[in-house]
Amino acid sequence: MYGVILAGGSGTRFWPVSREQHPKQLQKIIGTGTMIQNTVQRLLPLISIEKLRIGTHKQQATETIRQLESFGFLPDHLLAEPCSRNTALIIGLMAKIISDVDPDSVMAVFPADHVVTNNEKFIKILQKAETMAKKGYLVTLGISPTRPETGFGYIKQGSKTKEDKSIFQVEHFVEKPDLSKATEYLKSKAYFWNCGVFIWKTSVILEELQQHAENIYSQLENLKSCLQRSGKKLNHFELDGKGSKIFSALPSLSIDFAVMEKSSKVVFIPADIGWNDVGSWHALDEVCEKDKKGNILKGNVLAHDCNDSIVYGQDRLIATLGLKNTVVVDTQDALLVCAKDRAQDVKKLVEELNKKGCTEVKTPATVKKPWGSYTILDSGNNFLLKRIEVCPGESLSLQSHNHRSEHWTIAKGSAKVELNEDTFNLEVNDSIIIPLNAKHRLGNPGSEVLIIFEIQFGDQLDENDIFRHEDLYGRD
Amino acid sequence: MYGVILAGGSGTRFWPVSREQHPKQLQKIIGTGTMIQNTVQRLLPLISIEKLRIGTHKQQATETIRQLESFGFLPDHLLAEPCSRNTALIIGLMAKIISDVDPDSVMAVFPADHVVTNNEKFIKILQKAETMAKKGYLVTLGISPTRPETGFGYIKQGSKTKEDKSIFQVEHFVEKPDLSKATEYLKSKAYFWNCGVFIWKTSVILEELQQHAENIYSQLENLKSCLQRSGKKLNHFELDGKGSKIFSALPSLSIDFAVMEKSSKVVFIPADIGWNDVGSWHALDEVCEKDKKGNILKGNVLAHDCNDSIVYGQDRLIATLGLKNTVVVDTQDALLVCAKDRAQDVKKLVEELNKKGCTEVKTPATVKKPWGSYTILDSGNNFLLKRIEVCPGESLSLQSHNHRSEHWTIAKGSAKVELNEDTFNLEVNDSIIIPLNAKHRLGNPGSEVLIIFEIQFGDQLDENDIFRHEDLYGRD
Repeated sequence: MYGVILAGGSGTRFWPVSREQHPKQLQKIIGTGTMIQNTVQRLLPLISIEKLRIGTHKQQATETIRQLESFGFLPDHLLAEPCSRNTALIIGLMAKIISDVDPDSVMAVFPADHVVTNNEKFIKILQKAETMAKKGYLVTLGISPTRPETGFGYIKQGSKTKEDKSIFQVEHFVEKPDLSKATEYLKSKAYFWNCGVFIWKTSVILEELQQHAENIYSQLENLKSCLQRSGKKLNHFELDGKGSKIFSALPSLSIDFAVMEKSSKVVFIPADIGWNDVGSWHALDEVCEKDKKGNILKGNVLAHDCNDSIVYGQDRLIATLGLKNTVVVDTQDALLVCAKDRAQDVKKLVEELNKKGCTEVKTPATVKKPWGSYTILDSGNNFLLKRIEVCPGESLSLQSHNHRSEHWTIAKGSAKVELNEDTFNLEVNDSIIIPLNAKHRLGNPGSEVLIIFEIQFGDQLDENDIFRHEDLYGRD
Repeated sequence: MYGVILAGGSGTRFWPVSREQHPKQLQKIIGTGTMIQNTVQRLLPLISIEKLRIGTHKQQATETIRQLESFGFLPDHLLAEPCSRNTALIIGLMAKIISDVDPDSVMAVFPADHVVTNNEKFIKILQKAETMAKKGYLVTLGISPTRPETGFGYIKQGSKTKEDKSIFQVEHFVEKPDLSKATEYLKSKAYFWNCGVFIWKTSVILEELQQHAENIYSQLENLKSCLQRSGKKLNHFELDGKGSKIFSALPSLSIDFAVMEKSSKVVFIPADIGWNDVGSWHALDEVCEKDKKGNILKGNVLAHDCNDSIVYGQDRLIATLGLKNTVVVDTQDALLVCAKDRAQDVKKLVEELNKKGCTEVKTPATVKKPWGSYTILDSGNNFLLKRIEVCPGESLSLQSHNHRSEHWTIAKGSAKVELNEDTFNLEVNDSIIIPLNAKHRLGNPGSEVLIIFEIQFGDQLDENDIFRHEDLYGRD
C-alpha cells in the first residue's frame, strides 16, 4: 500500500507558532517530533518510507524534506504544489503518478497534522481498509463524535457491508452542521466525523474522478507531463511554468465534495483510535498531559495559582498568576494571549493581523531557506544583524549586493567563503568583510551546522537586494 | 525650600518592567517621562533643580543622574546608599547635610515613584506646608481614601490647628490595617492615607530624630564625614568603606515609625491632589486613559474583543483575544500574564522566581552601566553576541580578558579604540579584533550614541572575566 500525506495546510489557528511560511505540520505542537514527523512515524509499521508520497506547497518543500531526512524519505517522492487547490486535485495527480507505475496499487491518504493516540488500532483498521479497497471500495474512517462539533463534516451510518460486519455503507455525507444539528448527530449515534483519511485503489479513485470531476481528471495526464525535478540539489518534483498555470486554473475542490459525496462505492470503518485534528490551541486539552490544576505548560514557565490554562512558550521566562482557562503562546516575535473558549477565533484574529500588514502572520522570526535559516537579531537605520545557520553540505547562492556590505563572523562550525576570485576556509573566531558589489558565496563544507553572524551596512537592507549569479536550488 | 526625593524603592510589583537593577522609578510607566523624571518635573514650579537632592541605592546612581541630566540636575546632589535602610536614616543624613549648609532650611521629602494628577493644587499645598514647617511643625499630607486599602498607613484626623483651619492635628498614625478596619476608616471619613510626603525644617527633624531615634541621630555627623565623591567622572556622593559599614549596621526604620508616630509636632493637610502610589499594574486603571472597552494598551498591540484589560508591551507584536480583567506585560526577556485582581501578588511571584534563581528578577535584558548599556542578543557554547551602547563622551574601563577574544563592529556613531599601544578611530562599517589578553578600551568621542556589536569567543564568557586596569567610574 502506498501512503500519500497531504501537507498543504496553513494551520492559522495555531498562530503565532504556525505561520504561513512555516505552518502547523512543520511544528512541534505535541509529542516528540513535528506533526509531519509524527504522522510518518505512525505509518511506518504499515507503509515503508519508499512507498510514502507527500504533497505540499512549494514554500514548504525543502523544510519538509529536511524534517523527514532521518526517516530516509526520498526527496523525489515529494510533489511541490504551486498553490493551494484543496485535496481533489493533488489526490488525483498522486493517484495518476502511482497508478502509472503500479496500476493495481492501493493508496491511502492522510492529513499531515492530525493526532492518533491508539496507533495499534489505527494500523489494524488501515489493514482492514486495504482489504476492502482491493475489492473496489472507496474506504474512509469514521470517528465517533465526543462533542457537538460544528467544524467537521459528518458521515451518516448506513447498513453493514456484506463483506465485513464492522464496515458500513455511507448513507450520506453531511457538510459542517450548525450547533443544533451537531447536537442531534451526537445524540443519535448514527453520525461519525469524517477525519480525512481515505483508502482506495488508485485505479478506482481515478475512475471516480473521471465520472464526478471530469475537469480535474482530464488534466491529470497533462499535469504529469509537466513535472520536473527542482533545482540542482533537492530533486523533489514540481510543476514547470505551463503545469503551474494549468494547476492554478483548476477548481479548488475537496475530495469529499468532488467524489465522496457523489460516489456509490463509499464505505466507512468506525475508528475508535484516539483521533484528534488538533484544530486549535484548545485541542491541546484533549491530547496533552496536564498538571494537577489542569494546566498544560511548555517552556520556561512559572504558573502560580493558575487553572485549566495552556502556556506554550520557548526560552523566554513566562510567569502567570491567577489565570483561568487562558491560552498564552509566546514566540520570539509575536505573543498571543487568548480566552480558551475563543481559541477557534485565532483564525479571525490572524485575518485581522493580515489586513493590517503584520508580517508576523506570514514569516516566522527564523526564516527557513533551502540551505538552512536566518534570524534577524537587531536592526537600525543603516544596519541589520542576522544570525545565519547553514546546514552541513549546503551553500547559499553565489550572489552580490548593490546596496550593502557585510561583515561575517563564524560562531560555530566551518565555512567555505568564495569572494570574487578567492576562496577562504574559515573557522570559529574568524571574520571576513564582503564589500559592496563583491561576488560571494557562503557554504558549509563541514558535518555540523555552521552559524555565522552577519552585520549588513547600507541604504537598502532587504531580501530584494540579492543578485543571484548561481544557485543550487534553482532560485532566480 | 529644599526637596529630597527618595528613590530607593524596588517596585517589585511592577515586574517584569521593574527589576532590582532598574526599578520602577527609572521606568516609563505612565506619562511622558520615567517616574523620577515626572517627579522632578512636578516639583520644579516650587523647588529649583539646584535645591533638589536625591537619595538612591548605589546601583541606580548613574542611571538616575543620566535620566535627570536634561533638567540640569547636579550629580553631586545625589547620595548613593550602600544598601536599603528604609527612610529614617537617609532622611536624617540628608537633613544633616542640608542643615549644616543652611541651618534655617525647610526640606520637603517625596517618594520618586508616585503620581499626582492635580499638580497646581499640590504646589499650593506644599507652599502652605512650607509656612507651617517654618513654624516648627512636622507637616505631612493626608489623602482621602477612595477604597478600603490595606496596603497603606493611615492618619487619624485631630482638631484644626490654630494657625490654619484647613490644617489638622494628627490624633494618631495607624499602621496598615486589616480589611475590616480599612472599611471602617473609609466610612468614618476621619482617616486619611499617609502618602509619604513630609515637609519640615531640617533643624526640627534632626531634633526629633535625636529625641526619638537616638541611635540613628548619633551617627549622622560620623556618616557625613565618610562621604566622598564617586569615581573620576560622575561625582555623586557615596559613603566610603567605613561609612558604608556604619550605615549598614544601623536599623532599617521608616520615618513614620521612627519619628512621626511619636512626635507631638505633627500636623497634616488634607490633599485632594489626585495622588496615586502606582503600587501595582492594577493601579494603571486609576491613572491611565482607557479605550472604549476599558482597556489600557501600550506597544504593538491588537486587542480583539477584550475588556478592562491592561496590555503593556514593547516592540514585539501582541495579539489578545477575548480577555477580561487580565494584565499582560511583555519585555524582551520575560513575560507576565496575570489576573488583574491578583496584581498585588506579583510581589510574591517575584519572590518565588527569586528563589528559583531566575536572573530576570534582578537584571533587565538591557543592562545599564555608568558608560551606557549592553544587551545580550545571542549566545552559544563558546560565543556570546552583545549590542553595546556607549553614551557620548563616555568610555568603558581599560580592561583585558583572560578567557576571550572579541570582534567589534561599529553600527552607529564613532568609536575611539585603544588596543595595547595603539589607538584607532573607527566609524560605521569598521571592525576590529581584540585578541585574548590584549589591553583595550572602547570610548565614544562623538556627540551621538555609539552602537557596536561585540562577538565574544572563549571558554568563559561572563562579566567576571574583566580585569580593569583603569576606570573612570571608580570600579575595581
